[in-house]
Formats: sequence, structure tokens, C-alpha cells
Amino acid sequence: MNRTADVTSGKGERPVVPGPSSGRNVPADWVSSRPRAERARRVADALRQQITTGGFVDGVLPDEHSLGRQFGASRNAVREALGLLRQEGLIARRRGVGTTVVMPKYGHGLDRLAGLAEALTGYGTVINEVRVAEIVPELPAAIAERLQVPATAGGVHLERVRWLDGLPLSLDTTYLTADVGAGVLAGDLAGRDVFTLLEETTGCRLGRADVVVHAVTADPDTAALLGIGVGAAVFALERLTHLSDGRPVDTESIRIRADRMALRATMHRGQPAVSD
Amino acid sequence: MNRTADVTSGKGERPVVPGPSSGRNVPADWVSSRPRAERARRVADALRQQITTGGFVDGVLPDEHSLGRQFGASRNAVREALGLLRQEGLIARRRGVGTTVVMPKYGHGLDRLAGLAEALTGYGTVINEVRVAEIVPELPAAIAERLQVPATAGGVHLERVRWLDGLPLSLDTTYLTADVGAGVLAGDLAGRDVFTLLEETTGCRLGRADVVVHAVTADPDTAALLGIGVGAAVFALERLTHLSDGRPVDTESIRIRADRMALRATMHRGQPAVSD
Repeated sequence: MNRTADVTSGKGERPVVPGPSSGRNVPADWVSSRPRAERARRVADALRQQITTGGFVDGVLPDEHSLGRQFGASRNAVREALGLLRQEGLIARRRGVGTTVVMPKYGHGLDRLAGLAEALTGYGTVINEVRVAEIVPELPAAIAERLQVPATAGGVHLERVRWLDGLPLSLDTTYLTADVGAGVLAGDLAGRDVFTLLEETTGCRLGRADVVVHAVTADPDTAALLGIGVGAAVFALERLTHLSDGRPVDTESIRIRADRMALRATMHRGQPAVSD
Repeated sequence: MNRTADVTSGKGERPVVPGPSSGRNVPADWVSSRPRAERARRVADALRQQITTGGFVDGVLPDEHSLGRQFGASRNAVREALGLLRQEGLIARRRGVGTTVVMPKYGHGLDRLAGLAEALTGYGTVINEVRVAEIVPELPAAIAERLQVPATAGGVHLERVRWLDGLPLSLDTTYLTADVGAGVLAGDLAGRDVFTLLEETTGCRLGRADVVVHAVTADPDTAALLGIGVGAAVFALERLTHLSDGRPVDTESIRIRADRMALRATMHRGQPAVSD
């Protein structure tokens, strides 16, 4: 399907935009008649970005009228945008008080390999609710393959809900190879990151981790454990961590509340671009 | 709130896990009686990871019975797990055919700054449905602040739905500073990444970008534009891109279908760990 071949702006000509479904080119000043849902989305995006960067003094948003003026949007579109952000858990609206930021999102950097407690140093103390901490005599086949050991080598299985100042932030399921797992299992799993326990008990530094980030909606079990609604957006991370000698020792499945955390990265252009 | 002070595994003792709500320590072999939703979540996690890494030959999953045996889970738990993955858009289930992977997710690397078409080189051709391409005489206040220009300097506003082989993958809203925007506006917006247009028209390489990744559920407008259900999980990225001289020139709000794309990163341990 190629829905776009006819909508390119001609070089040097007046830029044009396609109508929402007509496929015909219409002038750019058609902008002002775009449907409300579209305006609501754009206003919500702009406000989310301002919330993320702490752009509202005292965490109070301007009233609907001011927001409408600022974004050139109708009051209904503004109301719809605020409804989206409330649904995301970012803002609260109360009569007489107005619209306030519930709390800024915590940032978890993707630039450097760090555990949650490390990443949140300065924000508060991470405490872990240890739900599973066990030796497993046989690893699930997919886990064994990922850790490059035979399933029969066994390993250590951990599951922890991670709390920051009374707020459940993430649910981490971890499998460790048997050799490094034993030391971690004897460590302070309630108070420490697995990463620091791994480095302390092995005497080896961690090397690299391969991370895949998914966004999913919360299943009933995740929702109950993290104190969010079924269907709320959560990050689901798969992370495979290696010791500095390259050996994979730690594979995790991590669910993170997306209403309370954002992932941050600094990307560099690096290599010359391949032409597209 | 500190729900975890009493559940730490004692050093050297047999590992214990807390009951789901009792707070009492129970032996690890209690594992087998955990509720179905919990098992379903774990099975779904394991399968999602295998799907992501192309772990199923021909994209066909084993039958419920085999999966149950492999994960030590009941048939109901397996069925619930498959239900979650179907809801995420990852698998299809048909009588007589079984359970199949709809398609592997495309990966978008967070390690290097690249446009979508660059990132998907080799997977197909990205074509952009240009919805907005206009000069704006005055920038929204928050956008101007981000780009470090006065609002009255104006800029260029783009909005594009990005398609790969008939599949709408992302919805990108872009604001460019006026100086670099004019050249981009005259370029092939339907066929090219903004990044490559920026580098070609300015003659400058891009430098770094600051990225914040949110996970949200699809609002009605996003859902309609990306061909997904309202409430489906989507990534919402905020990206501020600088030229190699450090000048911010491009701020974007990007929504990405999370059922068809995953974000990938390689993280390095780098600096010595701060003790937690």
C-alpha cells in the first residue's frame, strides 16, 4: 500500500497537507479545522513533555482557557487532552484546586548499565519485596539458551517488586547462572540491586547488557502487583547482562510502571548516515 | 511504606518467598501453587522474548500441552498467556493451524541517532504520509523554549505517518527552527527521513539527541492514524536533536506502534558502581 505518493510537497511550492481521509491535497491553513481528537492529542503531547521536564511551577497547570489560547485549541479539545493525561496518571483535576501534576516521572537512563537503586540514587531508597528467591535445578529451555548453559546446569530464580518511597515501580524476574547465582542468593536481596550483588560476590565487573524495550498493557497479575489498573501502559524490558569477560550471567524480564517512570537516552549521530 | 523489611532471605539459609499477601515466609516449593494469573504472566514473558528473538521455527508456537509441560504451567495458565500475547498483537490463533507469530517486531536502536528509514534499512521501504508541512509564524511557547529561540522566530511544523510495506508504524510530529526548516520543507518529505534532509540542506552533521521514552495507551486519534485499537500500548518518544555544533534544531513527539516495534539498546557498565 502506498498512500503517500501523491502528497509530497513539491520542491519550492507552497507546502500542502492531505485531508484526513480524502486523499486530496488541501492548503496548510486547513489546519484550523482539524478535528478535536487530533488537537487533543497534540495538546496532550505538548503538556506531557512540559510535565516531564518540570515545566510547571509548583506543579500547577494553567486553566483550560489559558491552555486553549496557548495552543490555539478549543476548550473541548483541551478538556479531552487533560482527560488523556489524567488517564495516564500524570495529572489530577480537582474543583477549586485546578489541574496539578501528580508527580514528575522518575528517569531511568539507558546510556549506562545501572540497577534501579543506582539509577534512582538521590530520589529515595529502593526497597525490594522479594517474591521468589530460589535455586532451580533445571532452567526453562529458553532461559538456558539465553544464558548459554545446559538447562540441567540449573540456576537461581528471583522475582522482586521494587518500591521507592512506598510506590511500587517495577516487577523484576531474574534468572542467574548457578555459579554466580549462589552468592547473590545469600546477599541482601531486599535492599540491594542484583547488579551490585553480582559484582561484589563474583569480584568481576559487569560488562555490557543487551536490552529490548517493549510497551505493553498491564495484565491482571502485573496490575495487582504494581498497584495500577489492568490495561495501563507498562514497559516490558528484556535484559541480558554479561560479565566483563563476555559471559552472559543474568537474564531479566522487567515490567516498569510507565505512569511513574520514563526511559532516557542520549543518542549520537556517530557513523555517516546511510542514504535512505 | 515498607512492605519488605521482613522478607529478606537470611544469609546462608534456605531461600524463602513471601506469600502473595500474607506477608509470612513460605518455602520456595510453594511455587507450584501460585495463582494462574502469575504463571500466565511468566509464560507470556518467556514467549514474548522468544518471539522477539525469532525463537520459533516458521513462526509456529508449540501446542498448549507442550507449552504447559515446558513451563510447568497448567493448560489454563498457558491459554491465559496466549490470550495476553494475542491481545498485544503478537500472535494469531486459528483452529487447525495453531498458534503463529503474526510478524517479528522491527527493532529501532537507541544506540545511534538514526531516522526510521535508516533504522529499517534492509527491512523495506519507509514511505511517509505527510499530514502537515507548514511554516508557522509563531512557535508554541514550550516548543520555542526547547529549541532555544524566541516564539516569534517561527519555525516549520511537520506531521507524518510513517509506513513500512503497507503498515503504519509511527506518527511523528516535528518542529524545526526557521533557518533549517525551510530547506527541509522543500525536500522529499514523503520519501526521506527528516534527519537526512537536515544534514543535506544544512551541510552540517547532526550531533546528539536527548530522548525520553514513555509508554502510553493509544488515544482515539493515534489509534485511527496507526490502525490500532484505542487503548493499545504505544511508545511516545520526545526527542530533541542538535546539530554537531550543539544547536537544538529539531524537536519531535513520536508515537510508535508497540505491537510492531521494539526499542533496542546495548548498555555498558562504564563508571564504577556507586554503592546502593
